[in-house]
Amino acid sequence: MTPHPALSPASGLIGTWRGDGRGEYPTIDSFEYTEEVTFTEVGKPFLLYVQKTWSPEGTPMHTETGYLRVTDGSALEFVLSQPTGQTELAEGTLIPAADGFSCELHSRVMSSASAKQVDETRRTIELAGDVLTTSFAMAAVGVPMTHHLASEMCRVS
Amino acid sequence: MTPHPALSPASGLIGTWRGDGRGEYPTIDSFEYTEEVTFTEVGKPFLLYVQKTWSPEGTPMHTETGYLRVTDGSALEFVLSQPTGQTELAEGTLIPAADGFSCELHSRVMSSASAKQVDETRRTIELAGDVLTTSFAMAAVGVPMTHHLASEMCRVS
Repeated sequence: MTPHPALSPASGLIGTWRGDGRGEYPTIDSFEYTEEVTFTEVGKPFLLYVQKTWSPEGTPMHTETGYLRVTDGSALEFVLSQPTGQTELAEGTLIPAADGFSCELHSRVMSSASAKQVDETRRTIELAGDVLTTSFAMAAVGVPMTHHLASEMCRVS
Repeated sequence: MTPHPALSPASGLIGTWRGDGRGEYPTIDSFEYTEEVTFTEVGKPFLLYVQKTWSPEGTPMHTETGYLRVTDGSALEFVLSQPTGQTELAEGTLIPAADGFSCELHSRVMSSASAKQVDETRRTIELAGDVLTTSFAMAAVGVPMTHHLASEMCRVS
């Protein structure tokens, strides 16, 4: 299927990515994880996004899902659901780079009644050929904006 | 896999549902659609939710995805992403009924910069054996809370 033309600035993301990450936050012990991310195109002006992580022992950890939208040629909108009870609406400007792009996304977050309160997040996405690098910071549970996750993945399909 | 015990009040949803729906709203022409919904359990205290609709001619229309959480035995939290640029956090109380339950969920909504502005939604879910009935109302694009969608689906797996 030919990707929708609106997706062209981010079409390098289409596929499955896998690699390792590291998490830290003032309220928890640091941890390592394996991450797999899939961006699927369905012929419409958005990509379906599914993310999963596992502990080094292979135990499922986090997962999240949603949609990546590209509008006006360079505006990225990442519409996300977390099974931990948060929705996240992350928006930023795509900056073209050699064989890819980078984007810093600033998020508004809603947390459900029973969920941990997340106030705000920052995400970075950097695509360079077959390497996808991500980072995630959040203001949550009373802690101001602080780095939480970083991962580097390679294309597996 | 045995569903997580927290899911037991809503475990009747696990599976795939398919049926017909009808949409209307003051700003658009009314329309009919086919809807398929899947609630998948993954051994954790939430269900993965994927919804798709098609026109009567079989053209893909809407899709949405997210997670259904059950907390405290009767609180439903529906964490949703829309490819149209909205996230929706819908919360309500599950009321047990013969061979199922009903729930009215009230949502907070965030809309991305390029998306249609949705202010608030109401969803109802009614499960009665192998029949799943849903409705959706929204306050959006300047229209106060108004009925938009209704569907009735039967279990297909």
